[in-house]
Amino acid sequence: MNPSSLALPHVAQLHAYTPGLQPTEAGWVKLNTNECPYPPSPRVAEALRREIGEDGASLRLYPNPKSGPLRAAVAKLHGLREENVVIGNGSDDILNLLVRAFVGCRAGSPDPAASSDATTAGSGDPALHQAAGFTLPSYSLYPVLVAIQDGRTDVIEFDRAMRLPLEKIAGSEARAFFLTSPNAPTGVGFANADLERAAASFRGLLVVDEAYAPFARENAVPLLARFPNLVVVRTLSKAYALAGIRVGYALAHPGIIDVLDRVRDSYNVSRLSQAAALAALGDQPYYDGVIAKVCATRDRCVRDLLDRRGWRTYDSQANFIFTEPKDARGATGLDVAKAAYSFLYSRKVLVRHFPSHALTAPFLRISVGTDAEMAALSDSLDAWQKAPVQNA
Amino acid sequence: MNPSSLALPHVAQLHAYTPGLQPTEAGWVKLNTNECPYPPSPRVAEALRREIGEDGASLRLYPNPKSGPLRAAVAKLHGLREENVVIGNGSDDILNLLVRAFVGCRAGSPDPAASSDATTAGSGDPALHQAAGFTLPSYSLYPVLVAIQDGRTDVIEFDRAMRLPLEKIAGSEARAFFLTSPNAPTGVGFANADLERAAASFRGLLVVDEAYAPFARENAVPLLARFPNLVVVRTLSKAYALAGIRVGYALAHPGIIDVLDRVRDSYNVSRLSQAAALAALGDQPYYDGVIAKVCATRDRCVRDLLDRRGWRTYDSQANFIFTEPKDARGATGLDVAKAAYSFLYSRKVLVRHFPSHALTAPFLRISVGTDAEMAALSDSLDAWQKAPVQNA
Repeated sequence: MNPSSLALPHVAQLHAYTPGLQPTEAGWVKLNTNECPYPPSPRVAEALRREIGEDGASLRLYPNPKSGPLRAAVAKLHGLREENVVIGNGSDDILNLLVRAFVGCRAGSPDPAASSDATTAGSGDPALHQAAGFTLPSYSLYPVLVAIQDGRTDVIEFDRAMRLPLEKIAGSEARAFFLTSPNAPTGVGFANADLERAAASFRGLLVVDEAYAPFARENAVPLLARFPNLVVVRTLSKAYALAGIRVGYALAHPGIIDVLDRVRDSYNVSRLSQAAALAALGDQPYYDGVIAKVCATRDRCVRDLLDRRGWRTYDSQANFIFTEPKDARGATGLDVAKAAYSFLYSRKVLVRHFPSHALTAPFLRISVGTDAEMAALSDSLDAWQKAPVQNA
Repeated sequence: MNPSSLALPHVAQLHAYTPGLQPTEAGWVKLNTNECPYPPSPRVAEALRREIGEDGASLRLYPNPKSGPLRAAVAKLHGLREENVVIGNGSDDILNLLVRAFVGCRAGSPDPAASSDATTAGSGDPALHQAAGFTLPSYSLYPVLVAIQDGRTDVIEFDRAMRLPLEKIAGSEARAFFLTSPNAPTGVGFANADLERAAASFRGLLVVDEAYAPFARENAVPLLARFPNLVVVRTLSKAYALAGIRVGYALAHPGIIDVLDRVRDSYNVSRLSQAAALAALGDQPYYDGVIAKVCATRDRCVRDLLDRRGWRTYDSQANFIFTEPKDARGATGLDVAKAAYSFLYSRKVLVRHFPSHALTAPFLRISVGTDAEMAALSDSLDAWQKAPVQNA
């Protein structure tokens, strides 16, 4: 007997999310998972040492189940109230809670024809499906989270211009729409004027996943007061240089926060993660400096890719760059991107390639590292462009 | 518009799990959430300081997505292989993954009459419902996790003797049965001979939640090799004195582990939690000493409650005691237990009362603290028994 046959049929068929490679050996120029190239605020290490004390005695006790002081700090940072905030074990935890609370399983979804049956269609707008909407490309975790719940998806494709498909979002009958802004993996930022139109026209919950917003010119937080159907999701993994501690949060109407708190695990954030996050949020001047450095490096690299190499490169408002490599013959496409990826890999420069969609396959996503790391990347790209083209 | 109306109907009606109180001010004798009264191994604080380093630079990087070294250490500890182990953000994370992977939503469950329809009943035994079974009383998180998924439950009640209802478990058509062993909140341990009969006769997945097994005379790990439908769940929150770091794990057939890995968040366990857990597991002699002390204090307190006070008290194989307070007039029951709880609370001694079930309402659950804490508890119980009975 293989006991996995006891699993739900849709679970047995799941394809898990594929995280970027996390090499354990040293020597890599790691530009593949959008981590911050600089260490976190020195206050983080101090706060952790304080929490650990001499013998780690406080660790025998459960953490604050509401992450209370951290909620208060997040609320203060954004000019909101504690009841507008919920803390997650990374923003992935928050996205997971949103899917579980708002997107039904397939079997539970009403037939579109029978969608007026309020007993199965949910207590909200009966015309809304129990589906999750998102754009393609965007953060590839969304479809995985929906598949785990056996939910339905409503996918809206970008075209190459990557402009927000406002009419299609307005017409979506999804119960929750997940919008990555700035988008991943393109780095394209959306104007608040557009996000506002999306929030006003879409009848379901609009989740703006702002993992990269600290690197952008605008963010959706000021819109929260006017749109009760808006949720803003943030993480400390990118701009706060704390991917290792797993802290993210959602900002929303208290009614949404209350729902997420009911689905959330009581002790989802460890004592050490709460202490580290609290210390980081208390040192905004340090992070202003980090963000300024990352953005300066990013903008310089984008110019180099555009002007010197002539590679199609999106205007990035994130801490990564999405660029279309051209080989020595001036060719682009899936195979060229693959070849560039492999060449970089062979020189221990790790970037990310998303081969499964036509809009992403010819591109590479390159996290913004230190100036030294970006110089190493540039040298490797020079060498690749000079190398003879290998025909498959 | 209250946007919570967009939530799924069953989510809008959820009652969240109620964790025990976690007072933030000092001065409490905290015997309410079964934390370890002793600090973790000194190696934990050392390992954390090493991971943090001078400036916390490693925290900018994502954790090992499989908790690889920790998996290997857990496997070695139990004489198993890495593919038999999955690590969770606390054992609650593991329980949640099990419910999501094996228990369907209500709408997705087939009618019992139509249960031979394999397309909706899952790929396993078509006679099994997509329901979660558990005993009452047991860990009160199970029904909450099932309710979040809008799943069905198959509840088997104990009688006051708290013997394992083997025939009823064998006859259960639940797809997964959750058995807390030693049981919570009674502390009653189940013999491996009985667990073996349960695993052999039950057709679904038998999840033995061994949060308290390090304090027991037997545990189900040796049965894993013979029963592919058996899952053993452990936590570092109790015996390892690490409730604050949120690490638990499951031991099972590789087919089950593979399923849980697909549903699990890629980065569910932080770098610091992985480092702390790894250090703790490496210091078994320290924890043997902690466990011996806790068991000695427990057994002495149980004898005192039974022999000196004459209170009905279950034989505990856990790090807590379930006892039925008798007031000055020799009365027992819900009101007496409530009065004892309140009296203790007024003296800043915190214990746990579960008033909602007839089998638990007359009892209090008291975590085993240090000898000094148990002496403070005993003094307060003496004072309560001498105090005039207050009629409601």
